Amino acid sequence: MITVTRRYAFSASHRLHSPLLADEANRELFGKCNNPFGHGHNYQLEVTVRGPVDATTGLAVDRETLDRLVRHAVLEHVESKDLNRDVPAFAGHYIPTTENLSLEIFQMLERSWRSEFKGDLPVLEKVRIEETARNIFEVHAHGQA
Amino acid sequence: MITVTRRYAFSASHRLHSPLLADEANRELFGKCNNPFGHGHNYQLEVTVRGPVDATTGLAVDRETLDRLVRHAVLEHVESKDLNRDVPAFAGHYIPTTENLSLEIFQMLERSWRSEFKGDLPVLEKVRIEETARNIFEVHAHGQA
Amino acid sequence: MITVTRRYAFSASHRLHSPLLADEANRELFGKCNNPFGHGHNYQLEVTVRGPVDATTGLAVDRETLDRLVRHAVLEHVESKDLNRDVPAFAGHYIPTTENLSLEIFQMLERSWRSEFKGDLPVLEKVRIEETARNIFEVHAHGQA
Amino acid sequence: MITVTRRYAFSASHRLHSPLLADEANRELFGKCNNPFGHGHNYQLEVTVRGPVDATTGLAVDRETLDRLVRHAVLEHVESKDLNRDVPAFAGHYIPTTENLSLEIFQMLERSWRSEFKGDLPVLEKVRIEETARNIFEVHAHGQA
Amino acid sequence: MITVTRRYAFSASHRLHSPLLADEANRELFGKCNNPFGHGHNYQLEVTVRGPVDATTGLAVDRETLDRLVRHAVLEHVESKDLNRDVPAFAGHYIPTTENLSLEIFQMLERSWRSEFKGDLPVLEKVRIEETARNIFEVHAHGQA
Amino acid sequence: MITVTRRYAFSASHRLHSPLLADEANRELFGKCNNPFGHGHNYQLEVTVRGPVDATTGLAVDRETLDRLVRHAVLEHVESKDLNRDVPAFAGHYIPTTENLSLEIFQMLERSWRSEFKGDLPVLEKVRIEETARNIFEVHAHGQA
Repeated sequence: MITVTRRYAFSASHRLHSPLLADEANRELFGKCNNPFGHGHNYQLEVTVRGPVDATTGLAVDRETLDRLVRHAVLEHVESKDLNRDVPAFAGHYIPTTENLSLEIFQMLERSWRSEFKGDLPVLEKVRIEETARNIFEVHAHGQA
Repeated sequence: MITVTRRYAFSASHRLHSPLLADEANRELFGKCNNPFGHGHNYQLEVTVRGPVDATTGLAVDRETLDRLVRHAVLEHVESKDLNRDVPAFAGHYIPTTENLSLEIFQMLERSWRSEFKGDLPVLEKVRIEETARNIFEVHAHGQA
Repeated sequence: MITVTRRYAFSASHRLHSPLLADEANRELFGKCNNPFGHGHNYQLEVTVRGPVDATTGLAVDRETLDRLVRHAVLEHVESKDLNRDVPAFAGHYIPTTENLSLEIFQMLERSWRSEFKGDLPVLEKVRIEETARNIFEVHAHGQA
Repeated sequence: MITVTRRYAFSASHRLHSPLLADEANRELFGKCNNPFGHGHNYQLEVTVRGPVDATTGLAVDRETLDRLVRHAVLEHVESKDLNRDVPAFAGHYIPTTENLSLEIFQMLERSWRSEFKGDLPVLEKVRIEETARNIFEVHAHGQA
Repeated sequence: MITVTRRYAFSASHRLHSPLLADEANRELFGKCNNPFGHGHNYQLEVTVRGPVDATTGLAVDRETLDRLVRHAVLEHVESKDLNRDVPAFAGHYIPTTENLSLEIFQMLERSWRSEFKGDLPVLEKVRIEETARNIFEVHAHGQA
Repeated sequence: MITVTRRYAFSASHRLHSPLLADEANRELFGKCNNPFGHGHNYQLEVTVRGPVDATTGLAVDRETLDRLVRHAVLEHVESKDLNRDVPAFAGHYIPTTENLSLEIFQMLERSWRSEFKGDLPVLEKVRIEETARNIFEVHAHGQA
């Protein structure tokens, strides 16, 4: 068994504002990130898969298949977007913190996984997002973090 | 003579859209970056100064003075902001491409330089902005690039 | 469940010398790192916490609380310090190798954790120190490394 | 218990071509990487060991011993080499994908481990190879990935 | 005036061997890099252009035009290639050291420049290649380095 | 003409304290960096040379010669050292700020240059030191910064 990780990049904007909190509480909680017009980041996304190495090809995952899945399931929905207004999952009902974005992207990948990778291999092991050089988020399969 | 460069970081959002072009021309020219709701970046800013080394202190520039100048003249105006709507220089009249942002930041620094650095030393030599890992912009003193 | 990692940086000096070994054995074991006057590093510290995402705030950990804890419990004690002489834990009785420094910092954080994070969440998952670009150390909760 | 990771670098060339597939299938599967004359990479290798910290030395692993082991068991066989033709393990019978290279390097280290590290400590925990900034591979002890 | 730099990456293999020197002299001069079967690198290429910022678009260079030029003039000829055998400029008559590769790439770009950038702007200012994290090469316009 | 840059690394400690200033003035000017026992850094050193490419070897500078010169003239004197007490140039008479260290290293290289590089080529173009990820210093030949 081996893990293979591919790195992708996308740029997007977001505003941190909870509809469940008053304006004052939002400003106190999120500080500058609550700025009404939003701000943005270069997100670095890593997708980690786990599986055995195929004896014929020497590969644990076909790069082209993985790239197509990540592109269609994730990148096309977030690249150069405003996460609050352009991504349906965040439109209104919850906040595009990078915690929520990581969980959402893990689910976006999981929903498309079976249609691309028949036979259940490789498995989706981990999603990691570097929001800035100081903030990193990881979601592991089975919530085992 | 020596140059000293300090690195700073800020996150902001922008939308590339020229008021001098039709919507269709904007979409063609800026592609995804013309997305109506904007997107964002982690900008890395480098400020380079040039001067002699002081014999008593061994310094070419006082770090605290430079940091205060950069913070007041630049960072407070762009950190966690929407460049199109929050920065007066870009509000309406021109486009927050990183070319224009670099020129604007060079001027922001120049306008405050004399009040912080009496006696004309050190001089402001260069402003460099890394917008993403693939796009880098530099403005040099005297436009000599 | 998700993990959130914050990166911090500090610069310090240390000298590797074991009081339990003769001078010659120290020189042989630690080589250049046994230099009597010491040397130093830019340490990069990563603190990883694990917890559920709060439904109201979209956060797994309040950044400000974590930063304050790391600053008071760790950074103020090591930033621009001589680890051998300025840090009580290393003053005399054991050697500030980065192995020991990592274990010590994990304990410094653990001792302050309960007073900052009521209710036991998030948990302290991992401390990671990059001493140089070639040497990396990790301490995991429950010693499971 | 703690983990210590050392980073090493080597440059090598490889050609991805499976002897079990027709030329056309190889071209389709490996694309540019099937180019007859091969191409190359700067591989970044990380070796992670796990063990207790020695009370006398403050170390979990002697750096010099680990470096010598990695140099003799791995680096001398791959540094500035053509993996297809210069490395016996790949000469003919299987394909130097970085999946296979990672597994092979893990085994190269394991075969020499006992002769360098008497008493079974530290243990070899993980081998990680960064083939390019976009492709990362990990092999963990006990195949638990 | 401003400079805009775009970063590109390609992987290739090469062998350092001068046809003007005896085998023994080649081995002594190039060491491991003279290995008969070659080795390879992940080359990082930076192309820097210089020009005024267009008042309508806020750009100093159209990204799409620059990318197409770099792709057609350079990347398609070196990506996943063996520089000694796949690149006509190096086939036989001179050695693919990264010095020569940098000069060759500067000329490849210059030959196509006029057909893409009418009106002489922006100008090609610099080509920079990072061969490994330790070796960097730059060619400037007018040979002024 | 081309420039070739080699990157080197060394770790050292220093204390910023001017013998020409009172203790109080030193504390105010240098802050944490005036800590009596000192602190340290991982310094990254880049040495840039400029010259024509040799037609026989395809090189602008012999790597082995440059490395030997940098090792003997610089690295052996600063690697794992206390700059204040171990480096004669700094012992007593002036302050090991990274400004002074950069100027000193430029001179260390210049003094040995002629004995290694006969015939005056390549020339020493630039010394660049990255003290931390936020502070970078450059000394150019002829003081033209």
